[in-house]
Amino acid sequence: MEINKKISKLLTLVKEKKPLIHHITNYVTVNDCANIVLALGGSPVMADAIEEVEDMVSMASALVLNIGTLNSTTVKSMIAAGKKANSLGIPVILDPVGIGATPYRKEVALNLIKEINFSVIRGNLAEIKTLGGLDSVSKGVDSEEIESDNSAEVAIDLAKKLRTVIAITGVIDYISDGEKIMSLKNGVEMLTKVTGTGCMTTSLIGTYCSVTTDYLTAAVAGIITMGISGENAMINLDENHGSGSYRTNIIDSVYNFSEIDVAERGAIYEN
Amino acid sequence: MEINKKISKLLTLVKEKKPLIHHITNYVTVNDCANIVLALGGSPVMADAIEEVEDMVSMASALVLNIGTLNSTTVKSMIAAGKKANSLGIPVILDPVGIGATPYRKEVALNLIKEINFSVIRGNLAEIKTLGGLDSVSKGVDSEEIESDNSAEVAIDLAKKLRTVIAITGVIDYISDGEKIMSLKNGVEMLTKVTGTGCMTTSLIGTYCSVTTDYLTAAVAGIITMGISGENAMINLDENHGSGSYRTNIIDSVYNFSEIDVAERGAIYEN
Amino acid sequence: MEINKKISKLLTLVKEKKPLIHHITNYVTVNDCANIVLALGGSPVMADAIEEVEDMVSMASALVLNIGTLNSTTVKSMIAAGKKANSLGIPVILDPVGIGATPYRKEVALNLIKEINFSVIRGNLAEIKTLGGLDSVSKGVDSEEIESDNSAEVAIDLAKKLRTVIAITGVIDYISDGEKIMSLKNGVEMLTKVTGTGCMTTSLIGTYCSVTTDYLTAAVAGIITMGISGENAMINLDENHGSGSYRTNIIDSVYNFSEIDVAERGAIYEN
Repeated sequence: MEINKKISKLLTLVKEKKPLIHHITNYVTVNDCANIVLALGGSPVMADAIEEVEDMVSMASALVLNIGTLNSTTVKSMIAAGKKANSLGIPVILDPVGIGATPYRKEVALNLIKEINFSVIRGNLAEIKTLGGLDSVSKGVDSEEIESDNSAEVAIDLAKKLRTVIAITGVIDYISDGEKIMSLKNGVEMLTKVTGTGCMTTSLIGTYCSVTTDYLTAAVAGIITMGISGENAMINLDENHGSGSYRTNIIDSVYNFSEIDVAERGAIYEN
Repeated sequence: MEINKKISKLLTLVKEKKPLIHHITNYVTVNDCANIVLALGGSPVMADAIEEVEDMVSMASALVLNIGTLNSTTVKSMIAAGKKANSLGIPVILDPVGIGATPYRKEVALNLIKEINFSVIRGNLAEIKTLGGLDSVSKGVDSEEIESDNSAEVAIDLAKKLRTVIAITGVIDYISDGEKIMSLKNGVEMLTKVTGTGCMTTSLIGTYCSVTTDYLTAAVAGIITMGISGENAMINLDENHGSGSYRTNIIDSVYNFSEIDVAERGAIYEN
Repeated sequence: MEINKKISKLLTLVKEKKPLIHHITNYVTVNDCANIVLALGGSPVMADAIEEVEDMVSMASALVLNIGTLNSTTVKSMIAAGKKANSLGIPVILDPVGIGATPYRKEVALNLIKEINFSVIRGNLAEIKTLGGLDSVSKGVDSEEIESDNSAEVAIDLAKKLRTVIAITGVIDYISDGEKIMSLKNGVEMLTKVTGTGCMTTSLIGTYCSVTTDYLTAAVAGIITMGISGENAMINLDENHGSGSYRTNIIDSVYNFSEIDVAERGAIYEN
């Protein structure tokens, strides 16, 4: 089956099954992550108390871990929930937000990939390079690195090493399971003017992962949903409007995202 | 006085008095709860540090407790604030978010209703049944139960048992003080596509409770404000828009909610 | 150079440098603070874990401390980050949200100004009076005080005492470095109907502070950016819309804020 048709099938499955997506995530973009999961057709739940995360994830169809505003308490909950999800075969997705910004983030993220098997890890180039032990340049939670010729190689190598799907998002996105490598060219620069579009992309990936075991396609599906929705949000942006309206338009566009968008607009390249 | 007129009177009182509504609530929908209280005419304050919650609630006209992202620290603050509010005669409102999802949530919620006297408890059918010790089916924080023939009975029984007002929200809403039972038919399905519409309804109930001791009417007022505003938000939704714009429209509609809406659109049934 | 031209220069510098603005702030308005910094042209990062705040602030160009939902854990992080910023010459901005509401807030805020040198402190009149040891009237996190004849004096006196810039925002805003006193008359009442417009103003001030050592101008720039954007947001508000759309319009207006706005609309008075 072509990739476009596979993505459309996942989209239909999400809308049919309304899968429960458990998040342990940051308090900055948590509301947007919940609303984007709902917009796609899933059912979000955010819960981080150590007393309940194992019970909560047991009911869920996917677990999203996002270290945007990590602290020692929630990190413990991430590990407990991640191990539980692993034992039950529930996919776990990691967003290593700002891992290059502080030694603490790096230590936590490296510990998470040691303790938990992830189905997909999504980050910008600086984040993924840091996770792979390569030098990188970041500023806070944003990458200062432009996609370079070796982005594809970075994705393939780390995917092989961690036996997971690695997704590097940027002007061009690279997604690899260690064998195949896909690149995507959807999206617009305006997506960087709204906080949390990366986090939301990870939540979309998590939602798609909940209805398949083909995590490579799920990662591509999540990223292209955000990329095309970002384009549609720009098309719908009135002239005198700005990043506030654009944020609202992103959610609207994911809500209206359809297989026609994928078929007509998807810019997916397989190498 | 007819119920419509009573609700209009409460709405006028809120706008006149700008009551302070203290929340100890979740970090997912907290911003929307603050903005909906402001939109109605109240003044929200969110504070959960054990060092200050008793002082803060002492200045407030109502206290809203919402367990959406509970943890052991904030639960202690909820109990301290709730007891203080009880001692001062300040109404306390409970939203037992996702109580059926994990044993921890159930334990916490049952402890809260043991330690604190609530003026109103609002939840979906699964949450209220769980609180009442009945079997229920939930998925995460969402109810999987359709209103059944015995919803009214569930509300009446628990209201009697806990000597409070019980509000079950869903396609049809049921509100009872243990004697009377009211049902409401306002609202649209789109309200389930935005996170936090339940939390926001509870915040609206809390705001109305701050200006009256007739908590049955206050609960009806809060629910009908959200129901009719949800309808108006749908009427104002442009064709190519979605759940992002709809969320904005909800706040706009509460901001513009008036006694004319109540009189012309309210679908309230007293049995 | 005239004040208008100085402000325009700071605006240009922010857009060129995309400065990293580290926040330790409340979970109610944190998303709006991040989006307003992005809208202006900066790069926000929110991080509060004691394990990383010193590393994070070392990469930043300014630090914003906001006590809106303070607790004993984050207060420790505020002090550690603030001291580190002081040692590196990075400007630190304080928003003493609701300091008059509880003894705990007052104690924390007084300790913060003892331990940390702030470049700018912004609050409403009640907050600034409380910080200066004067009697004041507040309700929750909102001031109940109308600007009085002595607002300018309050700003000047506290600025001298603390050797900082004091910004009192209200119908008229007063900003002083202890020598000069500026007053601003931009803004509209609708800004009080959206939660976090004060917090967002402080984030804007922090962003301007990151590109200059003239903190008086930076404070004026932040306040006038919100004031004029608030006016533009009102101009762009459709008749049947309300505080939800207005909130979106504020972010849009900051995104589109330009030196033409400052030159044509700025109502700045120097005494």
